[in-house]
Amino acid sequence: MRAVTLHRGQLEVEDVPDLRPTKGQVLLDVTRCGICGSDLHARVHGDATADVAAEIGYDHFMRSDQRVVMGHEFTGTVVDYGPGTRRRWSSGTPVVAMPILGTGDGIHLTGLSQPAAGGYAEQVLTTEALTFEVPNGLAPERAALTEPLAVALHAVNRGAVGTRDTAVVVGCGPIGLAVILVLKARGVRTVIASDYSPGRRELARRCGADVVVDPAAESPWSTFDDSRKYLTEASSLFELAVDSMTKLRAVPLLPWNRVLETAQKLGAGPRGPVVFECVGMPGVIEHIVSAAPLLTRVVVVGVCMEPDTFRPAMAINKEVELRFAFGYDPAEFHRALLLIAEGKVDPSPLVTDTVGLDGVADAFDRLADPERHAKILVDPSA
Amino acid sequence: MRAVTLHRGQLEVEDVPDLRPTKGQVLLDVTRCGICGSDLHARVHGDATADVAAEIGYDHFMRSDQRVVMGHEFTGTVVDYGPGTRRRWSSGTPVVAMPILGTGDGIHLTGLSQPAAGGYAEQVLTTEALTFEVPNGLAPERAALTEPLAVALHAVNRGAVGTRDTAVVVGCGPIGLAVILVLKARGVRTVIASDYSPGRRELARRCGADVVVDPAAESPWSTFDDSRKYLTEASSLFELAVDSMTKLRAVPLLPWNRVLETAQKLGAGPRGPVVFECVGMPGVIEHIVSAAPLLTRVVVVGVCMEPDTFRPAMAINKEVELRFAFGYDPAEFHRALLLIAEGKVDPSPLVTDTVGLDGVADAFDRLADPERHAKILVDPSA
Repeated sequence: MRAVTLHRGQLEVEDVPDLRPTKGQVLLDVTRCGICGSDLHARVHGDATADVAAEIGYDHFMRSDQRVVMGHEFTGTVVDYGPGTRRRWSSGTPVVAMPILGTGDGIHLTGLSQPAAGGYAEQVLTTEALTFEVPNGLAPERAALTEPLAVALHAVNRGAVGTRDTAVVVGCGPIGLAVILVLKARGVRTVIASDYSPGRRELARRCGADVVVDPAAESPWSTFDDSRKYLTEASSLFELAVDSMTKLRAVPLLPWNRVLETAQKLGAGPRGPVVFECVGMPGVIEHIVSAAPLLTRVVVVGVCMEPDTFRPAMAINKEVELRFAFGYDPAEFHRALLLIAEGKVDPSPLVTDTVGLDGVADAFDRLADPERHAKILVDPSA
Repeated sequence: MRAVTLHRGQLEVEDVPDLRPTKGQVLLDVTRCGICGSDLHARVHGDATADVAAEIGYDHFMRSDQRVVMGHEFTGTVVDYGPGTRRRWSSGTPVVAMPILGTGDGIHLTGLSQPAAGGYAEQVLTTEALTFEVPNGLAPERAALTEPLAVALHAVNRGAVGTRDTAVVVGCGPIGLAVILVLKARGVRTVIASDYSPGRRELARRCGADVVVDPAAESPWSTFDDSRKYLTEASSLFELAVDSMTKLRAVPLLPWNRVLETAQKLGAGPRGPVVFECVGMPGVIEHIVSAAPLLTRVVVVGVCMEPDTFRPAMAINKEVELRFAFGYDPAEFHRALLLIAEGKVDPSPLVTDTVGLDGVADAFDRLADPERHAKILVDPSA
């Protein structure tokens, strides 16, 4: 079959051996596969990522001297089954699958390891137990967004965002945009999005962000509505307490817990915003810790592979919380599919182009420009 | 009155002008005042701390060129009241107070700023609304532990530790020891304490730690009981999932959410331990992130004033959570007092010596040796 291979940083269309499903596996014809930011990163920094992956217990992450078929955001139609499967769907049924492949030689990351070839190809293998039927006649160009939407859904779950919370999305790449989509589908009233790129800001608007900010021109925190201003303007819990005491004048005759209760009624709120860090570059966590309001909860979704430096004293003074989010579980993956299929999330603003296998190498280059592109889909039949 | 002053790093006993309570203030005779690790730090790094404090909105933190009376962990007896007070207690009543003083010139940190002289003195001023009567005839050498216990209580609250959770206390200085006391008073079944110092480890045992570890000889994580081993031995959520799938064999025929449920029944548990970072030195957060089990929640209590570096990728792979804890609120301060007064916490293991005002400078030097000392109390009448 035809597939796009990566070898020493070079992407090429090649004829590779046909795939045969083994125990527990399903063979699919790929109908669409999204190009993920991780793929751009893995092309250049694969070996460094592989070293970290090995330290955390996965020693088969792709390395630059291997020839690998990438692509882990795929959808396709059922072609054939391996032994030991339940053969749950008839031939031609559209499905999506988690990119994790059980093989006789261990369990591997589809599209990010040599033993489990990915979706930049005419066909791909999946694990039957991690495969889900695409319902409602959902078009493949939408179903292919299931995987990044699952990442976003897990991040939002991890942040335990309530509808009355203010959410701030820092970085409007595909994952930031997917987070905005999920937050609005969940009914979160105020979603503030921040990105240096005008093109990405326009996509954030189309994904439903209520307030869109250019961080070079204004702070996302300055756009908070008045009810949050109180929390925003103090730079430490100590200053908030002092400020409440001063403004209320009644202090020190009031017990302080009543002072704080009253301060909350004045707008301090029970907690700060929930911030989604969707950039994954060194320095972003420190930027958020220094600039964000008191009691901010940060969900770290962007994967920063380098060591990163921040000021714990500042995080302490504001009682910041950093919750790191990893992938998604199968229930979240399935739920993400249903959110799209039931029309609760429209992921179409994310997709800025579709290319054939011959166009993948060029698409990788074009994705470097945030003005022009967010998510490019691969259609192996094109 | 006599007081210990700090000026350019030098501690001296001096005669300073008598204090007079102004609006809302209470004047106390100090009966005991604990020497806090913050005081040791402020003596040497006061100016750097003052710079951070100024950035977060408090521009009166003590500086080395000022003459300051330190001491914020005090207890005393009521002597007199300023105007606008309710004169709630009769003369001689024993009280403790939060170290925050409302003055005509703003609200200041008692014992850590020049405008609010602290408890290394014969007398101290408090804010009536932040002052609490010491009940049950509790001795001053116990009541003086209210403040560090309030810090520990707030940290435990922030960690939302359940009785069936495993808690790990990293660093057994006075705050680490107080955290152990509160965890055991709360009924947390398994408290693991870790410190390089044999003396501190002995104190951790006396404070009720169930398992005490020398991190130079063994890892605190290796002491987990079998039910946690599963979570401990995997180094990433991906490895845990793969491991469950492999061990259960049934995969890929099982839906993965059932696999994970089963893995939890096998001992993976709903989440990892709650770790209390009570060291506050650069590198400790990275050490915990790298060494701790999956799904660990870290409550950062130790105040690291320097920028600190860690690996977000490792935190993501384990879905670590970092919750930074700041001080305590008045309800927690009062609750800490009651925990001691009702005999639910016995803080006496923390106290390793008591000195008079003349002994404060020497006590500061002796506290540098963790083998010999944890908390030294000052008795101004001695």
